[in-house]
Amino acid sequence: MEPKQIIKEIKGKQEEIKSVIFVGCGASKADLYPAKYFLDKNAKKLRISHYTANEFNHAIPASLDETAIVISASLGGNTPETVEANAKAKAAGAHLISLTHTHNSPLTKDADYIIYHRFGENYAAKLEKMGYALTLAVEILDQYEGYDQYGDMQIGFSKIYDLAQSAAESAIVDAKKFAEAYKNDPVVYVMSSGATTEVAYSTSICLMMEMQWINSGIFHSGEFFHGPFEIVDKDVPFILLMNCGSTRPIDARALTFLKRFEAKTTVVDALDYGLSSSVPKTVIDYFNPMLITAVFRVYAEQLSYARQHPLTKRRYMWKLAY
Amino acid sequence: MEPKQIIKEIKGKQEEIKSVIFVGCGASKADLYPAKYFLDKNAKKLRISHYTANEFNHAIPASLDETAIVISASLGGNTPETVEANAKAKAAGAHLISLTHTHNSPLTKDADYIIYHRFGENYAAKLEKMGYALTLAVEILDQYEGYDQYGDMQIGFSKIYDLAQSAAESAIVDAKKFAEAYKNDPVVYVMSSGATTEVAYSTSICLMMEMQWINSGIFHSGEFFHGPFEIVDKDVPFILLMNCGSTRPIDARALTFLKRFEAKTTVVDALDYGLSSSVPKTVIDYFNPMLITAVFRVYAEQLSYARQHPLTKRRYMWKLAY
Repeated sequence: MEPKQIIKEIKGKQEEIKSVIFVGCGASKADLYPAKYFLDKNAKKLRISHYTANEFNHAIPASLDETAIVISASLGGNTPETVEANAKAKAAGAHLISLTHTHNSPLTKDADYIIYHRFGENYAAKLEKMGYALTLAVEILDQYEGYDQYGDMQIGFSKIYDLAQSAAESAIVDAKKFAEAYKNDPVVYVMSSGATTEVAYSTSICLMMEMQWINSGIFHSGEFFHGPFEIVDKDVPFILLMNCGSTRPIDARALTFLKRFEAKTTVVDALDYGLSSSVPKTVIDYFNPMLITAVFRVYAEQLSYARQHPLTKRRYMWKLAY
Repeated sequence: MEPKQIIKEIKGKQEEIKSVIFVGCGASKADLYPAKYFLDKNAKKLRISHYTANEFNHAIPASLDETAIVISASLGGNTPETVEANAKAKAAGAHLISLTHTHNSPLTKDADYIIYHRFGENYAAKLEKMGYALTLAVEILDQYEGYDQYGDMQIGFSKIYDLAQSAAESAIVDAKKFAEAYKNDPVVYVMSSGATTEVAYSTSICLMMEMQWINSGIFHSGEFFHGPFEIVDKDVPFILLMNCGSTRPIDARALTFLKRFEAKTTVVDALDYGLSSSVPKTVIDYFNPMLITAVFRVYAEQLSYARQHPLTKRRYMWKLAY
């Protein structure tokens, strides 16, 4: 069922929705963030929260009842904590929508609505989880509170997948330069702001730590000046995921500082890939994470080649019980 | 004015409050987190959000109006981004409460209500910013929605400052051991869960990166298994801030993994310092961050002595315009 229809059906059953709760783990948690950010920014009545699944499971929010919509995500559909979260959401009578790549996976068992997304086909396909979550958020806001930029968001959705795919394909030369420059670094910091904040997060904890075993830290570009910037010195490695939209001045201020003190800086900038000429300015903030995710995937791939460390290599995950 | 009276007065002016918005930077942002967490967990109607000040300033939430209470914090009261956030909150007609140590500081200019907290006197005084924010959160919930455990929270508040002070004073031997063991490490990870999640955050970005120039990363203990744990190897340094309460099983699972693979692990455990015998079980979750903050301050002090790097030493902060 399409997101619009799902929310329409929920509204038919439950006229008053008070809370929208996003639940996932790791990259799937991060992929829900742009949707959470969109609602946090634009909703006036709906309560919005976002949990790693085991936090949700151990400290269930008082708002979890039939007035809540829960949106959960798991690529393989078998993340145990997220499957458990689904069971808890269902038991509480919440309206449960799950996003997964994997048909008939455990995540689908308790879900009222399932959206299957693509993943491996190309760079654009990897964005569908994030994109469907954002689409659901837009539908929830529009149908429950009304949303003036609904049409502009639809224009954005109609453009972003092709734009992100072509941006990723055009990034290979810069990505190879990045890979050669960073392949021997013992630690790398990642930062961003706005809707892209958790793309920086998943870049740090998944692409760097999990998939490359490189030490990494992450913070909001606005927080950089309230602690982390004291680590800056000549050649300390940073990746700045730069937004085109409301929070660009925050990212730009961090970039100025990094350049001033000659930190080793790689910038992936949505402006360079034409986001501002494809997506309406009124809603551009929310499409940065999709574009930047696609481009940085190429950077991560090139880094894995330069380091001869496949992105699929693990010490523990998929190998041990823990 | 006392928190109870402040919220009573706001309620006299504005019967319907829809949103509670927490705004700060760095350690002051983190100090607001237990209050945010408390409301996120327990409120059924109130919308809750939490921003680093410049994110708030550049992407003002649609909910910022006379139905919002904004709670901002800045130790010195002169953090430019937070002072600007106050101006924006006031211009939008929100009810604005500010926490600061510094009388007549710029932060007090636009605030409708100012709470001055102590700081330098002892370890307990350093907790007052966090404690007042939580007290305000409890009052907001109780007065606007009702809160069954209100009495238990008051017992908790009556105990936590003395408990935290004596816990900190008793931690010095363990803190010295930690300092000797970690003083030469090039990177250290910090994790926690529940209400203590952003104590781990401020420990990482402020105590380690800002005040010791040690590389550091941070994540929720529940997220550990969804990426970061692949960095674990023999002797990789971790600090685990362990909660006594709902999310303890999440922290304990991370500890089991760290021990199994012989990571270099320091645990600061609220259980060791008697939290469970001082604070009612119904509300214990919310007092972990105060106790652990006090104890870990001693660890940070000892680390600074062992490294001959004062906690007040800076490269950039207080020295340059940026």
